[in-house]
Amino acid sequence: MEVFKTICEIREFSIERKKRGERVGFVPTMGFLHEGHLSLVDEARRHADVVVVSIFVNPTQFGPNEDLDVYPRDFERDAELCESRGVDAIFAPSANEMYPTVNTTWVEETSLTKRLCGADRPTHFRGVTTVVSKLFNVVCPDVAVFGEKDYQQAAVVKKMVADLNFGVEIIVAPIVRESDGLALSSRNKYLSVEERGNALAIRQSLLDAKSAVADGERDSTKLADAAVSRISRAGGRVDYVEIADPDTLEPLLEIGDEAVMLIAAYFGATRLIDNARF
Amino acid sequence: MEVFKTICEIREFSIERKKRGERVGFVPTMGFLHEGHLSLVDEARRHADVVVVSIFVNPTQFGPNEDLDVYPRDFERDAELCESRGVDAIFAPSANEMYPTVNTTWVEETSLTKRLCGADRPTHFRGVTTVVSKLFNVVCPDVAVFGEKDYQQAAVVKKMVADLNFGVEIIVAPIVRESDGLALSSRNKYLSVEERGNALAIRQSLLDAKSAVADGERDSTKLADAAVSRISRAGGRVDYVEIADPDTLEPLLEIGDEAVMLIAAYFGATRLIDNARF
Repeated sequence: MEVFKTICEIREFSIERKKRGERVGFVPTMGFLHEGHLSLVDEARRHADVVVVSIFVNPTQFGPNEDLDVYPRDFERDAELCESRGVDAIFAPSANEMYPTVNTTWVEETSLTKRLCGADRPTHFRGVTTVVSKLFNVVCPDVAVFGEKDYQQAAVVKKMVADLNFGVEIIVAPIVRESDGLALSSRNKYLSVEERGNALAIRQSLLDAKSAVADGERDSTKLADAAVSRISRAGGRVDYVEIADPDTLEPLLEIGDEAVMLIAAYFGATRLIDNARF
Repeated sequence: MEVFKTICEIREFSIERKKRGERVGFVPTMGFLHEGHLSLVDEARRHADVVVVSIFVNPTQFGPNEDLDVYPRDFERDAELCESRGVDAIFAPSANEMYPTVNTTWVEETSLTKRLCGADRPTHFRGVTTVVSKLFNVVCPDVAVFGEKDYQQAAVVKKMVADLNFGVEIIVAPIVRESDGLALSSRNKYLSVEERGNALAIRQSLLDAKSAVADGERDSTKLADAAVSRISRAGGRVDYVEIADPDTLEPLLEIGDEAVMLIAAYFGATRLIDNARF
């Protein structure tokens, strides 16, 4: 496995492999890898000959009062996990390599980003789409894999790729969970033992909604209210519970053929997200 | 010479040529080609094995009251000119091919675009950087050539390419002029005979400033005032006359080692731009 720190090196690596007729698969991450990320590596492997993982805690997607400085990092462990999973190359640039001068060019999706996680984090998705564009231009992947846990992020990236004609196939891979159902997240490590137990209410309220829908419930407000109650009773502070169109993320008052339920809630100071498709 | 109307075709053409180890040169245009565009083709040829010209009147860079509908178009003539100049492929998509759904993702440079041509045209450069990004992703060029007449546009594109790590070398080719000095522009055809004569005042005021600087003048305000007077006396309505840093386009009060003088002025209803380096 190769480890590259510079744009020049990873671009050369990638272009060289493409010249040989190989397909390059790409998994962009902020590191502190868990089984969720590694499932994306496996998925990339199924669609590509070469798998590149980027590890970069992207400053432009953190707000001024967010956890950029304390975001967990462990490069040695990440590299071991990648190597054990058969990753071909890690791209782990410094912030200075990615943003050597004052960045004044932004890639911004202006519709799907306005609600849900974008409502309280006005520059978050702009940071995501900008760094993903930069990474696509540097790594030149044929296919890139994103996790469904960050449902809105994946939808925004898909819209960006379509709007800007990136020649990159986007694959969204299913959420990986702990055995008790908690969605894997690098931020789970912030949770106390008690918060960790209480946080299961997010997944449980998604499952409640899923069975209510299976039993014929179509009223989004009822479903969302039930989820808010359950999470609040467990000591969580709900940021949002929304039932939306799976592609446009427009809120749905009534559940039709397809819907996604999206939840963000704080347990203690830790903000967790999860979602389920109906 | 090949003519492609679809993204799929031009991308395949370009990738195929790159696989053979050939360098792809790209000249994005809005058509109605003149010797200025053709000089960009020649420049692309000097840096690439294959030259692709795009012809696309990009709706997103026109404001609501601008000349999108009447912008001059003559595809047959453009194709002949390209063929005679040895262009390998024209990419001439429809608006629907480039914007098949409501576009919600924008590429926006937020510093160099705020002044000069961007001051009165708040979404113009956003349209330019978005369509250039799309075209880069579709044509996959190794090198792209822009004209120095659109000085601010070239500076914005260079900043975008650096910020977003596009793997495209940007070359800025010198202005091509009529024998009397008027910079070539597709919009010159809007000028009446009288306006056409008067419009020479733009170039003349740039030359006046250049000789004043050669004679030791360092005061930008004096130089700009003289240009405004000369253009106004010729019946032109000045939009801006500015002396700025050649890279950042920040206004310079005093001329130092390097400067660019940029002028935009109306003759009749036609807005013309020109510039000169000191």
